[in-house]
Amino acid sequence: MILEGHHQRSITRTQDGRGARILDQRELPWKVKWVELRSAHDAEVAIREMWTRGAPMIGATAAYGLAMALAMDASDETLDAAYTLLLASRPTAVNLRWALDRMMETVRPLPASERAEAAFARADAICDEDVALNKAIGEHGLALLRDLHAKHPDRPLNILTHCNAGWLATVDYGTATAPIYLAHDAGIPVHVWVDETRPRNQGALLTAFELSGHGVPHTVIVDNAGGHLMMNGQVDAVIVGTDRVTANGDVCNKIGTYLKALAAFDNDVPFYVALPSPTFDPDTPTGRDIPIEERHGDEVIHVAGEGGTIRVTGSSAANPAFDVTPARLVTAYITERGVLDRV
Amino acid sequence: MILEGHHQRSITRTQDGRGARILDQRELPWKVKWVELRSAHDAEVAIREMWTRGAPMIGATAAYGLAMALAMDASDETLDAAYTLLLASRPTAVNLRWALDRMMETVRPLPASERAEAAFARADAICDEDVALNKAIGEHGLALLRDLHAKHPDRPLNILTHCNAGWLATVDYGTATAPIYLAHDAGIPVHVWVDETRPRNQGALLTAFELSGHGVPHTVIVDNAGGHLMMNGQVDAVIVGTDRVTANGDVCNKIGTYLKALAAFDNDVPFYVALPSPTFDPDTPTGRDIPIEERHGDEVIHVAGEGGTIRVTGSSAANPAFDVTPARLVTAYITERGVLDRV
Repeated sequence: MILEGHHQRSITRTQDGRGARILDQRELPWKVKWVELRSAHDAEVAIREMWTRGAPMIGATAAYGLAMALAMDASDETLDAAYTLLLASRPTAVNLRWALDRMMETVRPLPASERAEAAFARADAICDEDVALNKAIGEHGLALLRDLHAKHPDRPLNILTHCNAGWLATVDYGTATAPIYLAHDAGIPVHVWVDETRPRNQGALLTAFELSGHGVPHTVIVDNAGGHLMMNGQVDAVIVGTDRVTANGDVCNKIGTYLKALAAFDNDVPFYVALPSPTFDPDTPTGRDIPIEERHGDEVIHVAGEGGTIRVTGSSAANPAFDVTPARLVTAYITERGVLDRV
Repeated sequence: MILEGHHQRSITRTQDGRGARILDQRELPWKVKWVELRSAHDAEVAIREMWTRGAPMIGATAAYGLAMALAMDASDETLDAAYTLLLASRPTAVNLRWALDRMMETVRPLPASERAEAAFARADAICDEDVALNKAIGEHGLALLRDLHAKHPDRPLNILTHCNAGWLATVDYGTATAPIYLAHDAGIPVHVWVDETRPRNQGALLTAFELSGHGVPHTVIVDNAGGHLMMNGQVDAVIVGTDRVTANGDVCNKIGTYLKALAAFDNDVPFYVALPSPTFDPDTPTGRDIPIEERHGDEVIHVAGEGGTIRVTGSSAANPAFDVTPARLVTAYITERGVLDRV
C-alpha cells in the first residue's frame, strides 16, 4: 500500500539482501519507525514484543529470521535452534508454524552452502504468496463493492470495518481492507467508518493510519456508533477479517464483531467476512467449540495514546478478546478463490 | 446511596440551610470533591460547567440556586434575573425549565419576606419527589429481578448496564440503577457488567464509582464485550435509562444502547428500560422523528483519565451521541407507576 507517498510492503528485504525491514508498529501512528532485523534473535524479539502482528506478518518475519540465522551459520544445529527460537516467539500463532515448516522443507535437504540463499528465496516466496492471496481477496471483494456502488453512483460508498485486518497485519493489502484499497484505486469513491476497537484501539490507531497513508477517506467512530449509522442508511457494507471460521460458518473475530453483524442484519446491510481460505477450520464444528481468550483486565483499565498511558476506571475489568458471529448473520465470505454466499 | 460508608443524597442543603452541597463530578472517580454552592451564580456555574449532570440533578441544583438568590434579595427583579440566569445554564434541559417553573409558581405570589424560606422548602420537595419516584422505579424493577434470580438462585444475578443513569444523575437511587441498588439491599446477590460507554466513559468512570461506593459487585467491560457475554449466558438482564421514549415505544438513549438491545433480543435476555413516566413523549411518533445530537469529534479523539488526557487516533472522528432502540427490542419499561410490557 501507499505509505509516505510511495508503494511499500509491510516487510521487505533490506537493501543488502541479508536482513528484513519492517515497521515497529508499537508507536503507530505517532511514530513511523522502520527497523532492520539482522538476525533470528532480532526477528524473535520483533514478534514476541509485538513490533509486528497479524498472522501473515508473523509468518513472514519468522521466515526471514530463519534465513538470517542460516546466513550466519548454515549448520543443522543453527537451523534447529533458530526454528525452535522462532516457533516459541508467539505460541498460539498457527501461521508461524506453517511458515517455519515451509522453510524447513526447503532448506533441510540442501547442503549448507546453498541453504541461506534458498531460505531467503523461500521467505520471499512466502511474502509473494501472501500478497497474491490478499490481492485475490481484494479483487473478489471489489466486484461486490462495484455492484453496491452502482446502486447509489451519486454518493460515496460507505464501508464499516472493525479492528485491523489490514496492510499492517499482512505483507500487503490486508484481508478486510483489500477490497477497500482496490475499490479506492479503481476510482470508486470509498469512505470507511473505522471502529475504534476497544480495548486495544487497533482501528483508531492502525486501520486509520493505513487508510491515511493510502489516501482513503475515513472517519473514526467509537464502537458504540455503528448501529446508529446503519439504521440511518450511512453504511453500505461491513467488511471484517477473522481468526477462524468453523465448519458451520461461524466467525471468530475481535470482540465486538458480533454486535456489528447483528446491526447489519437488522438493517439489511451486507456483512462480509474476508479471509484466506486456510482460515476455514473444518475440524471445529461451531463457534461454541472455540475457546475464547480472556486477556488481562489491564488492557481495559489503561488506555495508551499520544501523551502516554492513562487509567480510565477505578474498578476492575474483564477482557474477553474475541467473540463469535453466527453464520446466519454473514452475507458472504470473501476468499482468494471467490465469494462464498452463506448457505 | 452509600458513599464513603454512609447514606447520602447527590444534593442536600448545607448545614446552615442556606446553600446546597453537591459532588463536583468532573474528576470522579479520582477525586471525591463535595462543594458548597452559595448563590444562584454558583449553581449556574455548576450546571454550565458540568460539575453536575443528569436531568433531575440539574433541576434540583437550579431550584436551590433560585432559593439562594431569594435568600440574598427577595425582590421581583432578583427573582426574574435568577430565573433567566439559571434557565440559560443548559439550554436543552427540559427538566431544568420544569423545576424553575415549579419554583416560580410557589414563590411569585408570596410577599418578599416569605419567599426565601418557601423557595428552599419547594426545592427540598422537588428533591424528595425525585427520590420517591426513583425508589418507586426501583421497587417495580426489584420485583422483576427477584423473579429472574429465582430461576437461578444458586448464582449471582448478572445485570448489564450502559452509560450512567444512576445516583449521580438524580437526587438518589438513579433510574436504571434503582432496581440494582434495591436488589442488592434486599440481599439478592447482584453482579453488574458496566459498559465503559465510549466516548465519555460514563460507565467506567461514574457507574463503576457509584456501585463501588454502595458495595455492589461489578466488572467494567468495553462496549464491544456485552454481546459475547450474553451469548455465553453471562447476562440475566439488561437495564438502561433513556432520554426520551416516543409514542410508539422507541427508546432514545446513549449511543450504543441499540447494539446491546439487539444482542439481548438475539439471546433471549430481557432488555429493560427504566424511566420516570414524564420521559414518555407522546408528541413524537417514532424514533425516526428524534434528531440525534452530533457532538464534536474531539470527544472521540481524546480520552481523559487518571494521568491526564491522551490522543487515541491520528485521524478525524464522528460522534453521534445517542441512538434509537426500536420498541420491538424492549422487553418492558420500568416506571414509577409500574412495569409496562412492550405492546
